[in-house]
Amino acid sequence: MSASLLEQLIDAFRVLPGVGQKSAQRMAYHVLEREREGGRRLADTLAKAIERIGHCRRCRDFSETDICATCGSASRDAHQLCLVESPADRLAIEQATGYRGLYFVLQGRLSPLDGIGPRELGLDTLAARLAEGEVQEMIIATNPTVEGEATAHYLAQLARQHKVRPSRLAHGVPLGGELEYVDRGTLSHAFGSRSEMPD
Amino acid sequence: MSASLLEQLIDAFRVLPGVGQKSAQRMAYHVLEREREGGRRLADTLAKAIERIGHCRRCRDFSETDICATCGSASRDAHQLCLVESPADRLAIEQATGYRGLYFVLQGRLSPLDGIGPRELGLDTLAARLAEGEVQEMIIATNPTVEGEATAHYLAQLARQHKVRPSRLAHGVPLGGELEYVDRGTLSHAFGSRSEMPD
Repeated sequence: MSASLLEQLIDAFRVLPGVGQKSAQRMAYHVLEREREGGRRLADTLAKAIERIGHCRRCRDFSETDICATCGSASRDAHQLCLVESPADRLAIEQATGYRGLYFVLQGRLSPLDGIGPRELGLDTLAARLAEGEVQEMIIATNPTVEGEATAHYLAQLARQHKVRPSRLAHGVPLGGELEYVDRGTLSHAFGSRSEMPD
Repeated sequence: MSASLLEQLIDAFRVLPGVGQKSAQRMAYHVLEREREGGRRLADTLAKAIERIGHCRRCRDFSETDICATCGSASRDAHQLCLVESPADRLAIEQATGYRGLYFVLQGRLSPLDGIGPRELGLDTLAARLAEGEVQEMIIATNPTVEGEATAHYLAQLARQHKVRPSRLAHGVPLGGELEYVDRGTLSHAFGSRSEMPD
């Protein structure tokens, strides 16, 4: 017996992250019961997005055009280049900081065991860009994980080869956190990197 | 400035239940980064399901055909009719119990303040069906909420008018639960409805 369309729909929802059998079922029923209009729009936008959204040729971020709006903007500072692992990280930095430079999205991190090397992260493109000589500072904003740190070290070397100054986001106690609940590694790092307080 | 396709996609994901801005963003990025094939299938199945899945003319459950597979099956017992509020409830009962009778899906519960009366729940169709005389027992499986109970009482009256025996799911302590954490109403009900243990 072949699966009914409803079963196929429930199954299709499971490609979404964090969605198991139960949530997928809830989504399918919710859309069919109460959100047919919104569901139609979702199906439509999803199909269109998958078809049209590719990667910016310059920064590898998602883009509908060959060069994304940020890379194509004349008002961004081309002397600073911020390296992030994913488009979501890029968005987080763009929303939280007043950064006006450019980005480069690795779409991953170095992970030799998974077959992800410099080539997969587009580091040849990055090297060519650094060779152009316009970038002066490379802000390395990979995640503070083991693989993210390894990637950061590799990137810093690459930057120095091209006479570009590498920098890394500060580590320390998060704002609004309580010391008691901060993990030991972070606390030890924050303690060691303490800075003098201004008068 | 009009929203980019990516922003539209994030927005479209928010029609799903329990999905806010952050999860919607995660879903959009996940699909574009890693699940384009699955995303295409989701868009496709969703559009098809919304277009083709309607309601069974007999039981009001979701169905691709005029009469659903359960209602059309010769192996189900037409003497028993189980009333549920939603297709999800119907599925839960079908999966958990060995019930071989038929269903009637109210697609809601009596809620005069929200303008949901007997008409919206298809109770005229239900009355006509009871009048056919085939149904002998009506198993009322509405939710044990205030509105569900009110609906259950209304349905029981309707059943009696047509000389159909109404029954209701048992209330009590859930299996595997701990008495300490069972709410007072349920515990009091279970205590009052205790039954003698067999030898």
